[in-house]
Amino acid sequence: MSVVTSGRYTFPSYNLVFFIFLQLGLHSVEGVWPLPQSITSSPERYPLNPQAFYFTYGSQSAAQEGCSVLDEAFKRYFSLIFPDYSSGRFYSEVKFLKCKNEVRFKVLLNLNVVVVHTGLETFSQLVYQEDFGSYYVNKTEIKDFPRFQFRGILLDTSRHYLPVQAILKTLDAMAFSKFNVFHWHIVDDPSFPYQSRTFPDLSAKGAFHPMTHIYTQSDVGRVISFARMRGIRVLPEFDSPGHTQSWGKGQSDLLTPCYSGSSPSGTFGPVNPILPSTYKFMATLFKEVSSVFPDSYIHLGGDEVNFSCCIVNITVALNRTSIVWQDVFDYHERIPKDTVLHIWKGLPASYAAELSAITKAGYRVLLAAPWYINHISYGQDWRNYYTVQPLNFSGTEEQKKLVIGGEVCMWGEYVDATNLTPRLWPRASAAAERLWSDEKQTSDVDKAFPRLQDFRCELLRRGIQAEPLFVGHCKHEYQGV
Amino acid sequence: MSVVTSGRYTFPSYNLVFFIFLQLGLHSVEGVWPLPQSITSSPERYPLNPQAFYFTYGSQSAAQEGCSVLDEAFKRYFSLIFPDYSSGRFYSEVKFLKCKNEVRFKVLLNLNVVVVHTGLETFSQLVYQEDFGSYYVNKTEIKDFPRFQFRGILLDTSRHYLPVQAILKTLDAMAFSKFNVFHWHIVDDPSFPYQSRTFPDLSAKGAFHPMTHIYTQSDVGRVISFARMRGIRVLPEFDSPGHTQSWGKGQSDLLTPCYSGSSPSGTFGPVNPILPSTYKFMATLFKEVSSVFPDSYIHLGGDEVNFSCCIVNITVALNRTSIVWQDVFDYHERIPKDTVLHIWKGLPASYAAELSAITKAGYRVLLAAPWYINHISYGQDWRNYYTVQPLNFSGTEEQKKLVIGGEVCMWGEYVDATNLTPRLWPRASAAAERLWSDEKQTSDVDKAFPRLQDFRCELLRRGIQAEPLFVGHCKHEYQGV
Repeated sequence: MSVVTSGRYTFPSYNLVFFIFLQLGLHSVEGVWPLPQSITSSPERYPLNPQAFYFTYGSQSAAQEGCSVLDEAFKRYFSLIFPDYSSGRFYSEVKFLKCKNEVRFKVLLNLNVVVVHTGLETFSQLVYQEDFGSYYVNKTEIKDFPRFQFRGILLDTSRHYLPVQAILKTLDAMAFSKFNVFHWHIVDDPSFPYQSRTFPDLSAKGAFHPMTHIYTQSDVGRVISFARMRGIRVLPEFDSPGHTQSWGKGQSDLLTPCYSGSSPSGTFGPVNPILPSTYKFMATLFKEVSSVFPDSYIHLGGDEVNFSCCIVNITVALNRTSIVWQDVFDYHERIPKDTVLHIWKGLPASYAAELSAITKAGYRVLLAAPWYINHISYGQDWRNYYTVQPLNFSGTEEQKKLVIGGEVCMWGEYVDATNLTPRLWPRASAAAERLWSDEKQTSDVDKAFPRLQDFRCELLRRGIQAEPLFVGHCKHEYQGV
Repeated sequence: MSVVTSGRYTFPSYNLVFFIFLQLGLHSVEGVWPLPQSITSSPERYPLNPQAFYFTYGSQSAAQEGCSVLDEAFKRYFSLIFPDYSSGRFYSEVKFLKCKNEVRFKVLLNLNVVVVHTGLETFSQLVYQEDFGSYYVNKTEIKDFPRFQFRGILLDTSRHYLPVQAILKTLDAMAFSKFNVFHWHIVDDPSFPYQSRTFPDLSAKGAFHPMTHIYTQSDVGRVISFARMRGIRVLPEFDSPGHTQSWGKGQSDLLTPCYSGSSPSGTFGPVNPILPSTYKFMATLFKEVSSVFPDSYIHLGGDEVNFSCCIVNITVALNRTSIVWQDVFDYHERIPKDTVLHIWKGLPASYAAELSAITKAGYRVLLAAPWYINHISYGQDWRNYYTVQPLNFSGTEEQKKLVIGGEVCMWGEYVDATNLTPRLWPRASAAAERLWSDEKQTSDVDKAFPRLQDFRCELLRRGIQAEPLFVGHCKHEYQGV
């Protein structure tokens, strides 16, 4: 028997619209999170023998063996699906590659690289293990594509430093929920942990600690590479001209001095807009940033001050697309047309109005406001994240198309590596389904609840310390606790 | 030089009133949490050489070498104070015991066993390390004793099972905040993880899983012994006659059958009060409980039903003191006079009224209501736990003396081993100071903030994943993250 998957990759860079046909397909008892656009399963099930199972490339696939991203993804998902076989006597890399003659089950992937991760993730969630250890898949047909192309998570490494290991763990978990953008809010007022090649004093003097609380070039490269291997882009944010107190420590004359009467008070405001040296510094820094972070987008911040317009032009010269917080739109009229506005303010009514206004002006938007997941409350607050309706604003069809996606923001006032993972998961997964799945099929939050519980147990099984949604237990809750 | 500590142990069992005089004493820059009753420090400081430091017994101490609880405590606190020397070439047990001739610094402890843990904890918080690795203590004089004798933490192992390791970790952290009672809410409606010798079906049929989600007799013994080594009592709670759904699975005819019209509906209410078999079962179970748990108190529950009076008499025959939730008082008048009432309901106004009424009736009380720490909210909610005034109710001095202490309750609806530690610490430590320290000296929550931040960093240094209180970093935040 064989499972054939085929994919179509329709947009040039990051749109993940794709179709998977799993003929003789697969269905677990637990279902798939986020819910595919279309899934038809039958009780007919097939055993999977881990010792005779391998992923390989379809003959029509553009990618073939040797494509490191896919080779690695195959290995990773093999281990996720068959954790008992990821090491030890049942499995070795050599045997895994050489067992073609013993194949009893085959997954053919005719997908482009950027799409395949989500397909593998779906497949991995369809496989289930019975009490005596056997693995099965049910016959299933799936057609799938994401509702929004941009499905992000923001981590804030300025208010608390997050060790690289904590970031990598988050990237791993992001892929399980089909998030595809890591928005790295890397610096802010409290600390500047990015170790710049051009301006090493920024972290030497602006980080919490110049040696232990920094991200070296090698750290950044590791994060980008780890993310890429999981189909995740890394969107860097160097928020300015406000939120730059830590910048001033390592770069004199950058910030605007405050005055007490006619003499400097020793405190500073935002980046100083009247000095030419400011623009030279910013241009140089962003040139470095654009060379270190390969993503076509750069997030420029621009929140909570009202003279950010000038910073947007910096990225034009770098051939990058800017994302800025909504404040830049709120305060200015002349913004380059391809700038993406990032909505973070307000209650449902006010962010809907903002969506309406910004899309009416023809700009693309990203919605973060309803997903400030650092704001915790008692009980099942994931329901609030789940029931968001991103397109429920007054506007034309054309306007709705300008909503390119959304983002879960984990601001760092009260979060560091001690509590990041259980605070993020599975609450962020609720937003993940909203951003991926069809809204009509996922309008019932009570129906989502048992599926999210199962998915949370799957996260635990994979070593992600996702917190419980309510009373109960998981079959595999001990690994890693 | 020498540090002499002496203690007075005034009550027969659990009152920890004691005095420590640290002549040539010690003071760290960070201070001590919870705040001692009296602390006077000077800038005069003394180096500590870990290779020539040991704890020993004072000549007037009732306990002497060979007392396992203290021998172990000395070893444990040596490792906590000098983590770099707990293993490796600088330290071995033999050398540690044999280095008496090299002594440069000596701590003499003339304290009773039950008091010494808190004294060692205080001492350990006074030692600090400078950047180049040297250890110091400042000259300090401390007189200390706890304001309340009962300072508890409740863990709920029924709504989610907590692995023994998670309980032990909590006990470790409890000792650091000078909590001295672990209230083990071991069973409840959702599951019955306690493996009874007499009624093994209770866990075989009532636990989430009969093999992996239970506490064996050996597990329970390990918890009790681990707690005892840290000066912590284990107070077991077998909540009845309500909250017993899980009991009914392994004990037929125990629960009251519900009826739909004239035929049983298949669902059950609380323990059935009309069957004699119920009382026989309860008496047998509590006899076992009192033999397994050596504490002189047993918590009988009794909440959220109005016919709990009958259960209280069971423990009289067992020569144990009962603790029951306030409901038993609210609904009944005839309760044995030495019963302790546990207040869990309400807002400040209503628990003050309850404190007033119960103490007026002459009963001792425990206050839990303001410290339901499972109720999370965004921001620094530890301030709410800190500013509780347990004796701020209308009543005589005699009534106030009946408030024996308080308890932080971590109910398990949304908590398991994935998020227990960062959710409990350092929030519970705020309540710990309220229960230990003088209220007038600790009335300023803003002054407490930097001290609690330092204490939280110390918890991290000791491997407790306590969450951050606000923006910032700790010197030792990487171990164990």
